[in-house]
Amino acid sequence: MKYSIRKKELEVIISLFNSLSKVKNFNELLEIIIDSSRILANCDGGTIYIKNDEDMLEFAHSKSYFLSSKYSEEVVQEIFKPFQLNIDENSIAGYCALTKKIINISDIQKFGNLVQFKYNDYWDKKYGYNTISILTVPLINNQNDLIGVLQLINAKDKETGKISYFSPRVEYIIDMISKQSAIAIYNFQLTNKLYVSQVETILKLGIASEYKDKETYNHLRRMSEYSKLLAYKIKGSNSYAENVRLASMMHDIGKIGVPDSILLKPAGLDQNEKKTMQKHTIYGAMILKDSEAFVLQLAARIALTHHEKWDGTGYPLGLKGEAIPLEGRIVALADVFDALSSKRVYKEAMTIDECKSFLLNEKGKHFDPNLVDIFIEMLPEVLEIRDRYLSDENISPEIFSIGDIIVDLSSI
Amino acid sequence: MKYSIRKKELEVIISLFNSLSKVKNFNELLEIIIDSSRILANCDGGTIYIKNDEDMLEFAHSKSYFLSSKYSEEVVQEIFKPFQLNIDENSIAGYCALTKKIINISDIQKFGNLVQFKYNDYWDKKYGYNTISILTVPLINNQNDLIGVLQLINAKDKETGKISYFSPRVEYIIDMISKQSAIAIYNFQLTNKLYVSQVETILKLGIASEYKDKETYNHLRRMSEYSKLLAYKIKGSNSYAENVRLASMMHDIGKIGVPDSILLKPAGLDQNEKKTMQKHTIYGAMILKDSEAFVLQLAARIALTHHEKWDGTGYPLGLKGEAIPLEGRIVALADVFDALSSKRVYKEAMTIDECKSFLLNEKGKHFDPNLVDIFIEMLPEVLEIRDRYLSDENISPEIFSIGDIIVDLSSI
Repeated sequence: MKYSIRKKELEVIISLFNSLSKVKNFNELLEIIIDSSRILANCDGGTIYIKNDEDMLEFAHSKSYFLSSKYSEEVVQEIFKPFQLNIDENSIAGYCALTKKIINISDIQKFGNLVQFKYNDYWDKKYGYNTISILTVPLINNQNDLIGVLQLINAKDKETGKISYFSPRVEYIIDMISKQSAIAIYNFQLTNKLYVSQVETILKLGIASEYKDKETYNHLRRMSEYSKLLAYKIKGSNSYAENVRLASMMHDIGKIGVPDSILLKPAGLDQNEKKTMQKHTIYGAMILKDSEAFVLQLAARIALTHHEKWDGTGYPLGLKGEAIPLEGRIVALADVFDALSSKRVYKEAMTIDECKSFLLNEKGKHFDPNLVDIFIEMLPEVLEIRDRYLSDENISPEIFSIGDIIVDLSSI
Repeated sequence: MKYSIRKKELEVIISLFNSLSKVKNFNELLEIIIDSSRILANCDGGTIYIKNDEDMLEFAHSKSYFLSSKYSEEVVQEIFKPFQLNIDENSIAGYCALTKKIINISDIQKFGNLVQFKYNDYWDKKYGYNTISILTVPLINNQNDLIGVLQLINAKDKETGKISYFSPRVEYIIDMISKQSAIAIYNFQLTNKLYVSQVETILKLGIASEYKDKETYNHLRRMSEYSKLLAYKIKGSNSYAENVRLASMMHDIGKIGVPDSILLKPAGLDQNEKKTMQKHTIYGAMILKDSEAFVLQLAARIALTHHEKWDGTGYPLGLKGEAIPLEGRIVALADVFDALSSKRVYKEAMTIDECKSFLLNEKGKHFDPNLVDIFIEMLPEVLEIRDRYLSDENISPEIFSIGDIIVDLSSI
């Protein structure tokens, strides 16, 4: 280590590192980084810019003791309104991002005109701020990609409390924590993107599976939310319940293997046709099986068993009672309830009282009796979900853009 | 802080924390944790157990100065053969995992019989090891879930070098780093699981899209790998290329919207039927569009444009040249090349020379001329991929298990 680190500083650093991997919320993460930096550098303000998908620096979070003491919370919010900077020499943060180098300016008033980039004193004038020293540090991850920029303003002298410059020792410490911070931000972004991407891919699979028989987004949303609720009431684990929600969206994927002549027949399937239709459970399991991913293992089990019945009269295996996997029993109930309680082109919706009677009548026959009781108990929550995803219309226009070309898919 | 931390220790801690979020490999992560712990505790050996999906403690990584100096690399490997422990009082690590408490034993020879758990001295006897002091620390993440156990063996006295006990000060430091370590391990597992799950869901979508017209896993694997190779040669970015690989698997998802009567017609589509078949590009874009996830944005673009041709004679939009998104041009080439170079039920495979002529003939007509040149240049790599995924048979039996029940899906 180049400089010795004091015990107080060490405590801040360790507490920061501890927090970095713990926070669940992006803003909280940025706030912790700025707060720790301000303590370590003993300075007034701190700002983090994050590079966005368009390669712009986006103002992400900022704090200033001076502004917080002088203005109300609302005015500070107004001052810190989001804006974007180009990664170029037209701003200090932009120049730091461009060169990936630390820029340590002891007095911007003196040196402002000598440097390559421009200093914009619009804020200073407007809010009576007197920017003097600025330490600007690039946030770079372990693949040497720029993640963002950390900017600290107005270091204070320990003895006099007057505004001073950022010492080489402070620069060293801030540089050290900026590396960890950048990686934490990057990991957060990555996990978030991966999660969004996973959830959306599953939704696409769900939509694909209902594409031909015109089931809607909202049917998938409702039945998967009902399934999640049931799963949570039984197991009490949020992550299990969320996995059941995602997995349940894929329950009918096997339908893509059923011939149109049967899948799209409006009514009256004969015995043979029924048998063929029922194979969607097996096709679904064939498509989804043999995955390492828990959510797909659940999905395969659900696809195979969501038409089994508690009394053993279901298909394709005729499993009975608890031999049917819990998730299969859950989705059976959620799926049937949604079919009953929703309007379709060919039928009206049952009233809730009718649905309730139906479930109670099928308790121990079609459905797991325990699940029926839980479901009826949680009906208020169920109806809240139903009302949230009530519309069965597709409201989004079929617009698609490729670069500058905008295509109306419905018109081709 | 309860105890003061020395500068040397601080360096180890900071370097550990720095490494924790950086490593790309799970074993490397465990090794860094063990190495740092051994330095901080000044002890001979360290072992990490990881809790697996079956709630067992799995021996994951171990190091010992004594064993490494006494035995060859192979023998040490043999000693550290993977095994599992129950989370119960039958072992120290199991007991630590059960109670989530630190167990600090100064002399197992003296106290071994006084404690709740059993001490197994099988190893000691077999390898001439003399276990005396043992510090066992639970690895717990920020949701207070047990991730694993860190066990350190035989602390050494700083002055005499003799085996001694783990001091409360060392216990404090190891406890501190164990928290960070547990979170790093947990984050690693989480990201890994999320990634596997994302990739496999996309593969399932790909399989679903080819389900009816009996394209195979291997077609998807080959064409997506060709696409990845081309994407990498053009852009030089690994993550972009991997995204193109994943996105390209979904290029035909719109086929699920095409009526069987047309999709499954062996040959000779009339003009109207062709138009309907061509709509699979539009259906694909409709299913995949409007996602926040980059991979799905790519996939939507590919689905819509993988039948466009460089000279503007393709469908559905008749785009020309660079107005066709790069990814669409890439997949067009990769998909056609795989169709030509593979055997299908109804046709033999073209020879590579024939394929080459075909591509060169279509250079600037069907295909982006630049991509054709690059593809032909990289033919050796292409053929390697082709040979790796040559078989078009489905070798895995259709076996599926639900709990104890094993189902042969193909027999139902």
